[in-house]
Amino acid sequence: MKLKDAIRTIPDFPKPGIMYRDITTLLTNRRALTEAIIQLSAPYKNKDVDSVAGIEARGFTFGTAVAYELGSGFVPIRKKGKLPFKTYEQDYTLEYGTDTIEIHADSLRKGENVLIVDDLIATGGTAEAAVKLLRKTGANIIGAAFVIDLPELGGTEKLMRMGIPVTTLVKFEGH
Amino acid sequence: MKLKDAIRTIPDFPKPGIMYRDITTLLTNRRALTEAIIQLSAPYKNKDVDSVAGIEARGFTFGTAVAYELGSGFVPIRKKGKLPFKTYEQDYTLEYGTDTIEIHADSLRKGENVLIVDDLIATGGTAEAAVKLLRKTGANIIGAAFVIDLPELGGTEKLMRMGIPVTTLVKFEGH
Repeated sequence: MKLKDAIRTIPDFPKPGIMYRDITTLLTNRRALTEAIIQLSAPYKNKDVDSVAGIEARGFTFGTAVAYELGSGFVPIRKKGKLPFKTYEQDYTLEYGTDTIEIHADSLRKGENVLIVDDLIATGGTAEAAVKLLRKTGANIIGAAFVIDLPELGGTEKLMRMGIPVTTLVKFEGH
Repeated sequence: MKLKDAIRTIPDFPKPGIMYRDITTLLTNRRALTEAIIQLSAPYKNKDVDSVAGIEARGFTFGTAVAYELGSGFVPIRKKGKLPFKTYEQDYTLEYGTDTIEIHADSLRKGENVLIVDDLIATGGTAEAAVKLLRKTGANIIGAAFVIDLPELGGTEKLMRMGIPVTTLVKFEGH
């Protein structure tokens, strides 16, 4: 099946001119979900992935299933104030203002192999913050896997300039 | 392995007298995560589960992996305002004030079998709201599976009084 066909596009959401790529229709489609997890995991099957890191909240969905498929652990990266133990944090810039993500300081060991998984990469601002955050733990980031790439927004290139190999399943032109 | 040993307890979080059960240490532990997904899924292997419904945000982790293991779809139940398409919504009462959860109105077909998955059941307030929300779709709720049960808080009994079979993996006494 074509994964792209399982993704719904909602024009002018959340504001005029934006073509919103709605991943929930892929999650809800059992064949598409199974296929997406297999394809996301495949490039990392023999890479000795100790942990998958996923970003709240949509990254928790694909991330944990990929962790299960790879037999690795899952490390949640959350919005500030949600994690109950000692954390590292990383600020990043949004279109309006800034936000902060956190990770438990003891969730990754120095040198262990971690794979970033998220549903979509656009400008790469959140993914860049996740890379900086993960580097504070001393873990070895072996790559980043996304279901959807919006290549015109440059996020994939931004990560590759940071030395992070990137794999994506589906590309959409435009914003 | 004993799943219970993989869960960290943080005393007096988020306020004095509360023993917070931190599931992130189970997620991060690759053996514990694999075992938890297998155990959560096992009672539903032959129950023809069409979709797993998970509640934002921690329910997205276990929920999607269980969906993948069962070969079913995953339906996200989100906080109000996060889903981009037509939704049903359900209010529920918190300790202070109220909150609202939503589901895409077209995410489940009438009569299809849906399984609720979440990390923890305490008083069952959120789970009760999820049941009411799912019933608006016309889907058939075949059960609810949780990693952690706090039986003294009565959530499991509350769901069973609503006609929902409940399975849990680990029990902790007290709050």
